[in-house]
Amino acid sequence: MRVVEVPHLIALVESIGLEQVLGDLSDYITADFRRWPEFDKSPRYASHCPGGVIELMPTADAQNFGFKYVNGHPSNFKLGLQTVTAFGVLADTATGYPYLIAEMTILTALRTAATSALVAKHLARKDSQVMALIGLGAQSEFQAMAFKSQLGIKRLRVYDIDEDATIKFMKNMKDSGIDIVVARTAPEALQGADIVTTVTADKRQATILSDNMIGSGIHINAVGGDCPGKTELQAAILSRAAVFVEHTPQTRIEGEIQQMSADFPVTEMWQVINGEAAGRTYDDQITLFDSVGFAIEDFAALRYLYDKSADERFHRVVDLLAGPTDPRDLFGLLSGSREAAQDQPRAAA
Amino acid sequence: MRVVEVPHLIALVESIGLEQVLGDLSDYITADFRRWPEFDKSPRYASHCPGGVIELMPTADAQNFGFKYVNGHPSNFKLGLQTVTAFGVLADTATGYPYLIAEMTILTALRTAATSALVAKHLARKDSQVMALIGLGAQSEFQAMAFKSQLGIKRLRVYDIDEDATIKFMKNMKDSGIDIVVARTAPEALQGADIVTTVTADKRQATILSDNMIGSGIHINAVGGDCPGKTELQAAILSRAAVFVEHTPQTRIEGEIQQMSADFPVTEMWQVINGEAAGRTYDDQITLFDSVGFAIEDFAALRYLYDKSADERFHRVVDLLAGPTDPRDLFGLLSGSREAAQDQPRAAA
Repeated sequence: MRVVEVPHLIALVESIGLEQVLGDLSDYITADFRRWPEFDKSPRYASHCPGGVIELMPTADAQNFGFKYVNGHPSNFKLGLQTVTAFGVLADTATGYPYLIAEMTILTALRTAATSALVAKHLARKDSQVMALIGLGAQSEFQAMAFKSQLGIKRLRVYDIDEDATIKFMKNMKDSGIDIVVARTAPEALQGADIVTTVTADKRQATILSDNMIGSGIHINAVGGDCPGKTELQAAILSRAAVFVEHTPQTRIEGEIQQMSADFPVTEMWQVINGEAAGRTYDDQITLFDSVGFAIEDFAALRYLYDKSADERFHRVVDLLAGPTDPRDLFGLLSGSREAAQDQPRAAA
Repeated sequence: MRVVEVPHLIALVESIGLEQVLGDLSDYITADFRRWPEFDKSPRYASHCPGGVIELMPTADAQNFGFKYVNGHPSNFKLGLQTVTAFGVLADTATGYPYLIAEMTILTALRTAATSALVAKHLARKDSQVMALIGLGAQSEFQAMAFKSQLGIKRLRVYDIDEDATIKFMKNMKDSGIDIVVARTAPEALQGADIVTTVTADKRQATILSDNMIGSGIHINAVGGDCPGKTELQAAILSRAAVFVEHTPQTRIEGEIQQMSADFPVTEMWQVINGEAAGRTYDDQITLFDSVGFAIEDFAALRYLYDKSADERFHRVVDLLAGPTDPRDLFGLLSGSREAAQDQPRAAA
């Protein structure tokens, strides 16, 4: 079984190039959005613990089963740990044999940004040039680079309540080729913006964007509000906007629209991408992507990672599946009989 | 993060000794059965595919979250692959960080046998000496060794429809110290048996044991019937027996009692082990353990494996969790900035 560790993923991104990776991921995710009805779309499994939540996000098509393990522990930040970490698995449905285990903390950041950008291609005004970016935490640079590479956004207006986060962001972006203005407030960041991306980390109902900040024609990429009790937008904005989601049942629980009634109208993005539903219909329309992250995006990202990590620089092999020559002779593996010698699994990889 | 691969587990079992491992596992599983109400007992997640099923079996206590990935693909046998493979994960609920990934194909065989034996200690007659063992596939030797080491069973009467399976079993058991008689039929195997273990692999309603084969006072350890549509016992046997299960809601779907009405009386084993419910109450009683395997047994087995695998002979370390020095600087890992250098996760292992 192939394991793609953190250093492997870093080497892979360096080898391919970050902007190319974001574009490739957008293509893989788009391909899987196009065949959305083919997927098993079960709700995620969530285990709530005192410090946070641990989730398993499974999905499957006819050939592959995939899942992501992901935690969310807001107080980890105080311990110097990631608030969110993740790893993912792909398996062959024909045999049930898993063939890939991969780091997904960085990969999730990449796929989230790639998804935001591919959605904005359908929803933002074609003449969009300036993006406001509110929240300069772990996801911020990925969003900036995805909108640069996929939509040609070269001007950013950024804001974070925490000066250290701003310093970190500016340092990471210094060679990005993006023209960045640091705003002193969120409303100031929004001045003249065609797109606004909110990606703050507070685990509570916050008002990062209030109604009076939102002018006509803007596209809102709302990434940070992604679990029950965690929202970033004032409800009045939702009433004025055309709202687009990944998987409606999940977004009603986790997204900005948890603030609205159960029949609040939304459009699923896979239908827009397939031409079955309209995206933006006029320039002055306010469009809103209520992003929470769905298992199919992880599935697409894992497919991409598997396709690209065949070279031994980008993975290592672990022997996690017992494979005696005679499948009935599991016991023979323990007694070390030659006939039962461990066989390399014959599934992919 | 620690990974225990197949060769590590084999080396560990060799180092500790198989019978000792089975006893230790019985102790760990007993300890977790005793605190049964503390566990999160969610139903397993099942993804059905044309060739079989892929399942995620999660559980958690206050300190640890664990899950097992397991497939069941009956036709794998024809491809020379295991019909069932598995791996497991343990994570720290305080941080959400996973700290163990382990092979669980062999470990599941060990924990299933250890569970059967610890249950039989409570349910079989104290003077039990002879066990009939029907089905000599991958699980059979583990059952034989568990009943030898935990109950002192030194005489087996065995039967399998397939002569090759019998040859394999006899070869693996030749130094076991168990006196084994090969029967020509299942009824012949049952003659004089105090305990009967059924562990056949057919994925359909079969009648491995029929009512007329079952005499008074026997303990039935029914291991093979463990998914919807797969049973081994004639329903009439269930009506005559005191039936014991792991987790009632799951067993009603997957166990022998799927043949009975939804209010068919059963007793959960954790209550017997805690002294809250009676096990066997008289010598002539027929007792039946309707075993399907529950996540808490895997959890206990993973806890044991983690406790025993600290030595570097028994694991390897993989870097699956991105850990920048500044948790917000995930992007810095990609750009290779020194400040963001990958940090070893500070969670256990």
